[in-house]
Amino acid sequence: MAKSLITGGAGFIGSHVARHCLAAGHQVIVLDDLSGGFEDHIPAGATFIKGSITDEQLISKLFAEHKFDYVYHLAAYAAEGLSHFIRRFNYNNNLIGSVNLINESVKHDVKCFVFTSSIAVYGPGQVPMTEDMVPTPEDPYGVSKYAVELDLKAAHEMFGLNYVVFRPHNVYGENQNIGDKYRNVIGIFMNQIMQNLPMTIFGDGTQTRAFSYIDDVAIPIAKCVDVKEAYNEVFNIGADKPYTINELVDVVSKHLDAKPNVKHLQARKEVLHAYSSHEKSHRVFKTGDPVTLDAGIGKMAAWAKKVGSRASQEFGNIEINKNLPEGWTKKS
Amino acid sequence: MAKSLITGGAGFIGSHVARHCLAAGHQVIVLDDLSGGFEDHIPAGATFIKGSITDEQLISKLFAEHKFDYVYHLAAYAAEGLSHFIRRFNYNNNLIGSVNLINESVKHDVKCFVFTSSIAVYGPGQVPMTEDMVPTPEDPYGVSKYAVELDLKAAHEMFGLNYVVFRPHNVYGENQNIGDKYRNVIGIFMNQIMQNLPMTIFGDGTQTRAFSYIDDVAIPIAKCVDVKEAYNEVFNIGADKPYTINELVDVVSKHLDAKPNVKHLQARKEVLHAYSSHEKSHRVFKTGDPVTLDAGIGKMAAWAKKVGSRASQEFGNIEINKNLPEGWTKKS
Repeated sequence: MAKSLITGGAGFIGSHVARHCLAAGHQVIVLDDLSGGFEDHIPAGATFIKGSITDEQLISKLFAEHKFDYVYHLAAYAAEGLSHFIRRFNYNNNLIGSVNLINESVKHDVKCFVFTSSIAVYGPGQVPMTEDMVPTPEDPYGVSKYAVELDLKAAHEMFGLNYVVFRPHNVYGENQNIGDKYRNVIGIFMNQIMQNLPMTIFGDGTQTRAFSYIDDVAIPIAKCVDVKEAYNEVFNIGADKPYTINELVDVVSKHLDAKPNVKHLQARKEVLHAYSSHEKSHRVFKTGDPVTLDAGIGKMAAWAKKVGSRASQEFGNIEINKNLPEGWTKKS
Repeated sequence: MAKSLITGGAGFIGSHVARHCLAAGHQVIVLDDLSGGFEDHIPAGATFIKGSITDEQLISKLFAEHKFDYVYHLAAYAAEGLSHFIRRFNYNNNLIGSVNLINESVKHDVKCFVFTSSIAVYGPGQVPMTEDMVPTPEDPYGVSKYAVELDLKAAHEMFGLNYVVFRPHNVYGENQNIGDKYRNVIGIFMNQIMQNLPMTIFGDGTQTRAFSYIDDVAIPIAKCVDVKEAYNEVFNIGADKPYTINELVDVVSKHLDAKPNVKHLQARKEVLHAYSSHEKSHRVFKTGDPVTLDAGIGKMAAWAKKVGSRASQEFGNIEINKNLPEGWTKKS
């Protein structure tokens, strides 16, 4: 029986990956510090250890105790836009934490290290983004993810550690932390609707994203360790069809039985159109057609109605307040 | 009078930059933890503060107390080959430490942040390396340096922080820590000769490097803040002419009045030929012809004879012992 460590397994993507790994017969250990996840998202059958990937003693002890076959590393603080203002926190969580896991994976001969990166690594290049482009990330979050990708490649060359890198984008679905006001526009909209607040849009809402339903991302991630062709490769993963934020407003409103109510905020620095090619992941993982936005939002809305809104928490430790976008400052 | 912070100012390149900044009329504050530097290398006239760039409280206090015009960030642990085995230490020192400085430079409106990166960022591409190539570093040291470069670019875009990035290579000269057995082959050779030990070469010695005398690097670094054309640009910097390690053996031996005595160790993973174009730095900084290897080694040898050999210290905190090159293991 394969023994798998899933970091961030109480979080959004991680909890789904944990579920699919259990279904595939893995023994699953979830490590999560619950900074963005919830204990009740951890699927039954998984062993839960509360702790952080930045705690090197804990990580060292964990790898010594268990003999992990696979590491699925999904723990991250994924607020791309906020990362400019929390640089140290970002690199500490997303890079140093990852490196603790890479070190131990090398030392304990882990068979495959599965890492969820992000399309944030690509930076402002042409679209569609393809895996053969050389990334030039342009924000600290993208930089930290790309640094981990490069470090994994170096660890493979030097020590033979196998890896699979996924670059998902704009993932939504059940178990998302809809109380996080810094990321995931669909969750933010749902939370705002359920609190009778206007949906806030940075700029005019014509920016487009290909929103990806969680199953289209979590299923290939979970099964990749059994696909030898995927080893030491990078994959874009997610939905193909881009929608404007304005179109998204309509779909989310419909499924939450609300009249569209929008408040436009000042535009922030962000890429206007971002979408990536998934030809490679379709070919290697034999994934079918992605879930449509209407169907995916329908499922997530049904879940959101059941669990209700979540209080939004401020990120407590902003390092730079200069140029912080509207709505992210302390008093908002 | 310009007020400049020089991190790593007790170290090799940093102490020379500090000297040139003082000569140019700057008020100089040196920050150094003396992990690789020496207090007596700090030039007279500079104010010395002992401490680490990884100490965020200290950095924050320092920037609040002084109103730095310029930050010259030279503190680093630059052992490229060893970085595979000390990943966490590498990223913590070279990235998190840099980010502490970038954060404070943004908050306190520093006019220019001068960063010494490395040709290690380029990775295994074609030669000569030019600044318009998109880097793909292949070891943790190169990854950390490139991450800082990208972070600086992001800080410039978001906050207007000006920067100048230098990518020096194979720098040698007076004040080098010749007791560091993990880096700087010229210093290692001199130290070995003065201890009557054979000069150790990884592999057959046919690998080539364009060794750069310190003045060819430190002078442009010091003066770049006055060259507006250099702002927010990246520069290769150093000597042009590549030499084999075997040729180097002869030049070093000659200047230390020793007969060449060589011990070949097993080849390690490294680039065979590495040299970069300096057309851009020659154009912008109006630098003259680089110091010849013979002349530069002559000056360094005169200094080395005066100060004598240094005991080599083991790096105390190796994280991964697997595949550690011959001569770097504990017992050697």
